[in-house]
Amino acid sequence: MGGSLARALRRLSDPPTVLAWSPAAEEMESAARAGVIARVPASIEEVLEARLVVYATPLEACVRLLPVHAPLLRADALVTDVGSLMVPILDRVRSVGLEGRWIGSHPMCGSERSGFDASRADLYDGARVWISTTSDARAQARVSDLERFWRAVGARPARVDPAEHDRRMTLVSHLPQMTANALAEVLAAHGVDPDELGPGGRGMTRLAASSPDVWRDILMYAPDQLQDVLRALSRAIADIADGVESGDLDALEARMARTRTWRSEG
Amino acid sequence: MGGSLARALRRLSDPPTVLAWSPAAEEMESAARAGVIARVPASIEEVLEARLVVYATPLEACVRLLPVHAPLLRADALVTDVGSLMVPILDRVRSVGLEGRWIGSHPMCGSERSGFDASRADLYDGARVWISTTSDARAQARVSDLERFWRAVGARPARVDPAEHDRRMTLVSHLPQMTANALAEVLAAHGVDPDELGPGGRGMTRLAASSPDVWRDILMYAPDQLQDVLRALSRAIADIADGVESGDLDALEARMARTRTWRSEG
Repeated sequence: MGGSLARALRRLSDPPTVLAWSPAAEEMESAARAGVIARVPASIEEVLEARLVVYATPLEACVRLLPVHAPLLRADALVTDVGSLMVPILDRVRSVGLEGRWIGSHPMCGSERSGFDASRADLYDGARVWISTTSDARAQARVSDLERFWRAVGARPARVDPAEHDRRMTLVSHLPQMTANALAEVLAAHGVDPDELGPGGRGMTRLAASSPDVWRDILMYAPDQLQDVLRALSRAIADIADGVESGDLDALEARMARTRTWRSEG
Repeated sequence: MGGSLARALRRLSDPPTVLAWSPAAEEMESAARAGVIARVPASIEEVLEARLVVYATPLEACVRLLPVHAPLLRADALVTDVGSLMVPILDRVRSVGLEGRWIGSHPMCGSERSGFDASRADLYDGARVWISTTSDARAQARVSDLERFWRAVGARPARVDPAEHDRRMTLVSHLPQMTANALAEVLAAHGVDPDELGPGGRGMTRLAASSPDVWRDILMYAPDQLQDVLRALSRAIADIADGVESGDLDALEARMARTRTWRSEG
């Protein structure tokens, strides 16, 4: 997500100076060699002095880094992330006194791939970016600045209540991810090789290659609704199994017709 | 599937004369206007006189048509399909005395789209095509002819035992399809609009737009193993829900690491 953002900024007509820090030195070196960042910074402090700072880390890393970084950020910095959940970050932002400078961002354009090698300049093109702040008036006054930033890299920012955002993500993001993992588990347990899959099956298991680190953190902080929607899906699949066993083809066809309408109208 | 096959044949250096029949006259007219078929045939008999006949119909339509068409096919015709299951078709082929002329084909390149508008000349490029016959020696002697046909349109034919093929499809094809439908059902029931989904969620629900007609037939004839693998998936998802509820992050991360390895090595 970070590498793609740097690439998108580089292709602007008047590109800003972009620096980046990664615990993996080779990632910074690759990005500098590719001309995507200005140089490999001497230290993380050099990056934290920027006017705009974007955290492109797993959720828990951001939660842990914020107390350490807060004293190093400029008083007029604008700070955001490309995270997956709003509430746990905003809680930490408040506890470290960053609420005047922090606006949470969640671009809906992640994939199962990660690292600089997976970066591409058009990742954010047309992507919805959810934006949330605390109730702090200083942050709220700067939302339009951050919206301009996201629009500059091609994204479509929209404001959202943080708790409502996180509940929605259990359906829109976490449930599809866990579904891909569960499906991959069953296929692997039955000796299926991914090469045996057609385009449909490949599409249904692509997310199973997602980073377990990133998802461990999301699952740690996910709203309780996640277990409820997982159980609803478990029941729906058991219902379909019952329908297949009893040969109730009319009911199965009607279910498929409803989801076809839903998916085709989207 | 049929429209794409006609397009792929048209682009060969020495293209054969391709005719097609559809109960939807406008599909034939579109294909003729696009130059993809030679002309709109006057009747289905004109198509059944071909040296190679390919059924690109839902499974049950093929099962119902074979007794009607068998007397109309040439004695030296080679007849195949682009179906999803081998056993129910080969059973019918035997019962109508077509076993010397029929070789079953299953190209692993379907999508959620159907109809001539969705056809494309490169659909079969690189696609695995499973091929099965009855035990009839005349059909077995012609498998290499059909393999050449599939290779001509870019596909990769491979022979398979019909019963083994159909059992494998419950995992490789039917389970991913039913998973997409169940996931779409849960999202729709919770008021999610497909436009809210990111690329991951869109990929996980794309198959929910598949044709209920086509799938009704596949579910009718699917091996009993389908209900077993559906129940295994239902349990895996319930297990993940339990892990999320109890906060057993180590176990969840380990599960994800295993499926990542499986998917990335494929």
